Amino acid sequence: MNSSNTIIGKSLKRVDARGKTTGDTLFLTDLKVENMLHAAPVYSATPYGELLNIDTSRVESDPDFIAFFSANDIPGENQVGVIIEDQPLMADKVVRYIGDSVGILVAATNASAQRLSKLVDVQVQPFQPILSINDSRDAIQNFLHESNLACQHQVKRGDIEAAFESADHVIEAHFETPFQEHYYLEPQGCIAQLTAEGGIYIIGSIQCPFYVQKAVAKALDLPFSKIKVEQAPTGGAFGGKEDVPSEVCTRAALAALLLKQPVKMVYSRRDDVQLTSKRHPFQMHYKVGVSKEGKLLAAEIKLEENAGAYATLSSVVSYRSAMQAMGPYVIENISVESKSYYTNLPPTGAFRGFGSPQAAFGHERMMDIIATELGMDPTALRLQNILKVDSHTLTGQHLTSSVGAEETLRTAMEAAQWNDQDISEDSRWKTGYGVSLIHYGNCLGAAGWFMDGSGVKIKVHRDGSISVAFGLIEMGQGALTVVNQMAAEALGVESSRITILPTDTEQVPDSGPSVASRNVVMTGNAIRNAANKLSPILKEAAAELMQVDLREVNIENGLVSNIRNDEQMSFTELANYLYLSNRPMDVMGWWHVPELEYDAVNGIGEAYFTYSYATHIAKVKVDTLTGLVNVEKIWASHDVGRAINPSGLEAQIEGGTAQGIGWALTENFKMNLGEVLTDNLTTYLLPTAMDVGEIESIIVEDPEPEGPWGAKGIGEPAIIPTAAAIANAVSQALGKPMDQIPISPETVLEMIEN
Amino acid sequence: MNSSNTIIGKSLKRVDARGKTTGDTLFLTDLKVENMLHAAPVYSATPYGELLNIDTSRVESDPDFIAFFSANDIPGENQVGVIIEDQPLMADKVVRYIGDSVGILVAATNASAQRLSKLVDVQVQPFQPILSINDSRDAIQNFLHESNLACQHQVKRGDIEAAFESADHVIEAHFETPFQEHYYLEPQGCIAQLTAEGGIYIIGSIQCPFYVQKAVAKALDLPFSKIKVEQAPTGGAFGGKEDVPSEVCTRAALAALLLKQPVKMVYSRRDDVQLTSKRHPFQMHYKVGVSKEGKLLAAEIKLEENAGAYATLSSVVSYRSAMQAMGPYVIENISVESKSYYTNLPPTGAFRGFGSPQAAFGHERMMDIIATELGMDPTALRLQNILKVDSHTLTGQHLTSSVGAEETLRTAMEAAQWNDQDISEDSRWKTGYGVSLIHYGNCLGAAGWFMDGSGVKIKVHRDGSISVAFGLIEMGQGALTVVNQMAAEALGVESSRITILPTDTEQVPDSGPSVASRNVVMTGNAIRNAANKLSPILKEAAAELMQVDLREVNIENGLVSNIRNDEQMSFTELANYLYLSNRPMDVMGWWHVPELEYDAVNGIGEAYFTYSYATHIAKVKVDTLTGLVNVEKIWASHDVGRAINPSGLEAQIEGGTAQGIGWALTENFKMNLGEVLTDNLTTYLLPTAMDVGEIESIIVEDPEPEGPWGAKGIGEPAIIPTAAAIANAVSQALGKPMDQIPISPETVLEMIEN
Repeated sequence: MNSSNTIIGKSLKRVDARGKTTGDTLFLTDLKVENMLHAAPVYSATPYGELLNIDTSRVESDPDFIAFFSANDIPGENQVGVIIEDQPLMADKVVRYIGDSVGILVAATNASAQRLSKLVDVQVQPFQPILSINDSRDAIQNFLHESNLACQHQVKRGDIEAAFESADHVIEAHFETPFQEHYYLEPQGCIAQLTAEGGIYIIGSIQCPFYVQKAVAKALDLPFSKIKVEQAPTGGAFGGKEDVPSEVCTRAALAALLLKQPVKMVYSRRDDVQLTSKRHPFQMHYKVGVSKEGKLLAAEIKLEENAGAYATLSSVVSYRSAMQAMGPYVIENISVESKSYYTNLPPTGAFRGFGSPQAAFGHERMMDIIATELGMDPTALRLQNILKVDSHTLTGQHLTSSVGAEETLRTAMEAAQWNDQDISEDSRWKTGYGVSLIHYGNCLGAAGWFMDGSGVKIKVHRDGSISVAFGLIEMGQGALTVVNQMAAEALGVESSRITILPTDTEQVPDSGPSVASRNVVMTGNAIRNAANKLSPILKEAAAELMQVDLREVNIENGLVSNIRNDEQMSFTELANYLYLSNRPMDVMGWWHVPELEYDAVNGIGEAYFTYSYATHIAKVKVDTLTGLVNVEKIWASHDVGRAINPSGLEAQIEGGTAQGIGWALTENFKMNLGEVLTDNLTTYLLPTAMDVGEIESIIVEDPEPEGPWGAKGIGEPAIIPTAAAIANAVSQALGKPMDQIPISPETVLEMIEN
Repeated sequence: MNSSNTIIGKSLKRVDARGKTTGDTLFLTDLKVENMLHAAPVYSATPYGELLNIDTSRVESDPDFIAFFSANDIPGENQVGVIIEDQPLMADKVVRYIGDSVGILVAATNASAQRLSKLVDVQVQPFQPILSINDSRDAIQNFLHESNLACQHQVKRGDIEAAFESADHVIEAHFETPFQEHYYLEPQGCIAQLTAEGGIYIIGSIQCPFYVQKAVAKALDLPFSKIKVEQAPTGGAFGGKEDVPSEVCTRAALAALLLKQPVKMVYSRRDDVQLTSKRHPFQMHYKVGVSKEGKLLAAEIKLEENAGAYATLSSVVSYRSAMQAMGPYVIENISVESKSYYTNLPPTGAFRGFGSPQAAFGHERMMDIIATELGMDPTALRLQNILKVDSHTLTGQHLTSSVGAEETLRTAMEAAQWNDQDISEDSRWKTGYGVSLIHYGNCLGAAGWFMDGSGVKIKVHRDGSISVAFGLIEMGQGALTVVNQMAAEALGVESSRITILPTDTEQVPDSGPSVASRNVVMTGNAIRNAANKLSPILKEAAAELMQVDLREVNIENGLVSNIRNDEQMSFTELANYLYLSNRPMDVMGWWHVPELEYDAVNGIGEAYFTYSYATHIAKVKVDTLTGLVNVEKIWASHDVGRAINPSGLEAQIEGGTAQGIGWALTENFKMNLGEVLTDNLTTYLLPTAMDVGEIESIIVEDPEPEGPWGAKGIGEPAIIPTAAAIANAVSQALGKPMDQIPISPETVLEMIEN
C-alpha cells in the first residue's frame, strides 16, 4: 500500500450519519412486530429482605393483562451473573436492592404494561439494608451473598517496607469518587420472538450480543445455535449495555417462549435508572514514599468499591483499577489491594473506563499532593517518573514500544502554555490549572485473555462492492466508520465500496464484548487477517486476467495494476472475474490478543498487551461567590498509536472529556435508602455544551506494532484523566486539596468556608 | 469416520417438520411489517402490441390508492432478463403477452391493490399475435425480438449420413409435449423494505436469492452490498421461483424505494398462473437408424421449444434437452438441434428437469417405437445400447465411474416382474407396461460452469451446538435435513447439535441458483471443504486438552476420543475449550464443479461432470369406455450415487413421479389467444392421491467419486422418466403409439376410435 494513497488517517464522514440524521435509522422504540405484546419489569421496592409472596390479584382482571412470569417459570437456570454466578434472573428467595426483578408482566400495550407492573404486590420481609462500603466491609452477619466481598485483585511487587524506610517523604491521602449513571439517550429494550423450530430471535439495544445469547441459552435451556441475537441501532451504551441487556432480553425471551408471541420490553427512564448498573463508587487510600528529588519509591494503595447488590462486572473493574492504580509511572515497590463490596444498592458494573477514571483520580490527585509537598511543579514530578520505552509498569511489565506518555504530557503542556499559565487575578473568580496523566491497558487483559478474540466476515460481491460483518458493535462511538476505513485499506479499495452489516450472532464469530476500547484493535487485526486470506485469491485472479505473475499485481484504491506495464483495471472488473472463475469471495478473519505472561496471585507481569496514554490539562475558573466551577478549556492529548479517523477520534475525545466533566462537576447521583432520587434530567445534570467549554484534542501517534496500522484504543482513555485534571485545577485555584467529586457548588463553598 | 456410526444413509426426520406441522412456520402471506403497503402488478390484457398509454385516472381518486409506478420510474436499467437481456422489468414500448407487466400499483390494503390494479387502463395498439412454435419459426416479419429464435444448442458428432446409410432400419417419429404449470401451493410474493442507509432488504418466497440481488442492483442502480435478500420459508417452487422472483421483488423494491415505505406484493393465483413461467412445450422430430440386432447407429433429432414472450431460462432448457436428447445410450453418430422460439404466450422457463422430461419423452417413446419395429422387448433394446462405465455419452463424454443405468433398469424390471407381466384380459380395461430410462447431468453443466460454485458457513458454538448456513435453499425438497446430516457426518457430531439457518445473501457466499438438483452435491462438498478447515483446529485443541498427538484424536458421533487410551470427552467440552483457547470457531466452505472440457460449437465433450440415472416402469389400466388412464403402479429405480437420507429421497421420488403423472395425464393447460383458462384447481387438475396410485422407490447406489459421500442429485431425475413410461404403457395397452401428452380421456377415446 502506497502511504500517500492510504485512507488510514483520513477523516471519513460517519457512514451511519445519513440514517441517524434523517430519522430513517429505526431504534428499538420504533420497531414493531406483528402480534407483539409488551412487557415491563416487576421488582422489589424494598432494598433488602426475604421475598414472601408476589400477589398479582390486583392486575389479573385488567382487560390488558396478559401474563405474569416469575422465577418459577424459568425452564433452565435462574442465573444471569456475567462473571460470578450470584445473580438470579428473577429473585426468588431474597431481594437485594430496590429494582431487583422478581418477574415480568406482559400486557397488551406498553402503557398497560408500565401501569400494571407497578400494581403487582411484591411482599417482602425487610432486613436491615447495607448501603455503604464501610458497613459492608465491617459486617459480621447478614451477608448479601456468601460474604460481602464480591471480588478482589492485588499487585504485590518489590519490598515496600524497605522502600518506605528509605523514602524521604511518606505521604498519605484519601479520595472518594461517586456513582455515575450512564444516561444513554436510549433506554434498555428489546423484542424477543420465537422461531418456527422452537428457537429465539432477539433484536435489542445491546452492546454484547454474544452475552445475551449465552444468558438466554442458560435460562431457557436452549442450545446457542437456536438463539439469534441481533443488535438494533443503539442510542448509547457506555458499558451500561454490556451485561444488563442479558437480563432484559432473557426475561423478554422467557415471556415470548411461554406465550408463543413476540414480546417487546423497553424500560421507562425511571426503571432504567433504578434497575440498571452504574459506575462503582470508590474510596481509595494512597500511601506513597518518595525521595526528596521526587522519585517514586513505594506505594501502598487500597481501593474499595461499592459493587451494589450483584457483582456483574465488578471483577473487571477491580482488576483494571488495581493494574493501573499508580498510573503511568515507574515504581518498583508496590502493594495494591482492590476490593469490591456488596451493598443493597443497584449493581455497579461496566462503565467507560472500568475503574480507570476512579484509579486515575487517586493516582493523579496523589501526584499533585506529592508535588505540593515537595514544592515541585506537578509536571516535573510526573516527567521524572514517567513510563518510557524499556520501562517497567507497576505490575513489572516490560514496555518495548508505543509508550507515548511523555509525548502526550509535553504536547499538552505546550498547547496549554503550562509554563506560562494565564492566571488573572480576581477576587471572586479563581483560576487554576490541573494536569492528569494516565495509561490504559488495551482490551481485556490477562484476566480476560480467554475471550479476547474477535472476528470479521468479508464478502466481495461481483460488482466490486464489499460487505463487512464484524463481531463488535456500533453504539455511537463511530465503529462502523473506522471498520469501513480499515477494510478499505486492507483490501486496497475505496471506502465507498464497503457496507458494514448490522451485528448478529449468526453472521459473525463470537468476538467477545464490545468494551475495553477493543474495536479498532480487535476488528482491525481481524480485518487484516481476512485480507491476508483474500489477497492471494484476488492477486491470483488478477494475474490470470492480466497474464502476469501474481507478485507483479498491485491493488490499491480500487485500481488493479501490474508493475510490468501500465495496464490497469478497476476492482469491479476483478471482482466480476473472481465470480466468473468460481473463486471463493467470502472469507472469515480472526485475531486474538497475544498470550500474556501474568502471575494472577501477585498481580505481576503482562496485565495487558499494550497501553494507550493520555494527558489532560484543565483550566478552570472557580466562582468563590457561588461555588460554581467553570471549565474554560481542556487540552486532551492522546497517544492512540495511529489515528484511523482523526475526526472520529476527536469526537471520541470530546465525548469522553465531556462525560468526565459531568462526573467531576454536574452529575450528582442521589439515593435515599437505595431509591434513586435523580432519575431524570432535571435532577441528574448531564453537562450541556455550556458546561463543557472548549476542548482541544491533540493526537499523538506512537505506533503499536501489534495494533492494526499501529493503532490502539481510544474509547475509554478519553474519559479517564478528566476528573482528576479538574480536581487538580480546582485544588490549585483554591489552594486546598479537592479530594472527592462531584465538585458541586456546595462542596466548593464548604471548602472555602473551612 | 467409522461407517457403522455414520449418519449418512439414515432416514432422519425432517428438521423443519415441526414448524410446518404446527403452523409456526410463517410463510410470506403471514408476514407483516410496520407501515407496510400492498402492491399488485398492472399488466397487458393484449397478447402483442404497442403500448400507447397507461391511464390511471380511474384509480387515483380511490382513498386506498397510494401510487403507480411504471418503466419511467426505474432509476437503473429497465431489464430483468436472467440470461438474455430481452425482458424489461416493466414493458415500456411493446407488450408481448397477456401478463406482461407495465407497472406496479400500490395501495393501502392487499384487497385494494388487487382491485385497483385491474382498473388501470393499459392502452395497447394490438399486433397479430404469434402463438405457436410453427408460426414463430416461419414468421418473416413482426419478430417478437431481434428475431423469433430465442436460443439454440446443438450436438454434431460422428458421420450421420454414412451411419444412416449403413442402418438396417431408419425410423422416424414426431412427439409433442405440452405446457405445465408449476402450481406451487404458495404463490409468488415478497416484502421489500428500505434500510436506513439507503439500501434494500427483501424477504420473499424465492428459489435464488442471489438472482434477486442482482436484478435489484441492476434496476435500482444500487451496489450489491446494499441489498439483502432473504428467503422466507417457501411453499414450493419447482423452478417457478428461479427467475420470476427477480421480477416480483425488483418491482416491489422499486416501489419501496420511491415511497420510502415497506411494500408487500403477493400474487393472486390468477395473476400467478397468467404472469409467471411454465414448462416449455416441445415438438420433437426423431429419425434413428439401427442395425437389425437393435444397435443404435445414427440419430437426427430436432427439438423445438415454445419459449413464450421472453427467453428467461430457455437457454438452459435448450442446452440440457440437447445434451440428453438420445438418453443414456451409446450412439456415435448424432445430430441434435434444439431451438427455442418466442411466442406471445407467458414465458416458459425453469421447471423441474429443464427440458429433460420433454427430451425423455422423445427418446423413450422412440426406443419403444424402434423395439416394436424390430420386434424386440423394449428392455432388451435398451440393455443392448445402455451406457456403462467406459462408455461415451451422445456428446462423446467418457464415463469413468458411477454409471448405474443398467442397475436401475434391472432392479426396476425385477421389482415389476417385467418378464412376467400381470396383464389380465378384460374387454373394457386394457393393461399395459411401459419402461423409461434416463440420464440426468448433475448441476449446471459446461454452459453454466462459471457459476457452478457453492458455499457454506459453519459456526461451532461454545456449548457444542453448531449453526450451518448454506447458499442454496429449502423449498420443500428436504434440503435442510440432508444439509444437517452431511454437516453432522463431516464434523463427527450428532445431527441434534446442528441448526440450519435461513438463507440470506449476507450470510453466505453467492452459491448460484437452487436448481439442477444441485443441493446435495454442491452443499455437501462445500461442507466437506469447511470441515477440512475446522477439523485440524478441533483436533489440535483436543490433542492439547488430552495431551496426545493430534493424529491420535478421533471425533465421531459427538464423542472425542484418542487412540492412546480410553479417555473420552463430549464434543461440548471440546467446543468450550475451543472457545476458551481463543481458536476460530467459524469457517467458510466452498466447492465448485470440476472444470469441464467441452466444445460449445459442436456440443461435444463433458456436458456435465456426472450423471444420475433412473428407470421408471409404469403399469397402467386404460378404461376403453371412458378413456381414463389409471396408473396402477410405478416402479421408480434411481441411481443416486449414495442415499444421504433414504426417506427424504423416497419422498423426492414419489413427489417427482406424481408430478410426472400429472403432466402425463391430468394437467391440461389451456389458453385462448394467450389468456389462461385453467387458472385454478377446478380447471387445472393436479393429480390427487387417487390419481397417483402406488409408487415403489428403488434406490441404486453407485458412488460418484466427486459427489459428497458418493452422492448425486435426485430432485429432477424423479420426474424425468415418468411421462414416457406411462405413454409407453398406454401404447402397449392400446397397441397404438401414444406420442403426445397429456393423455386425456378424450385423446384416448379418439385414438381408440381412429
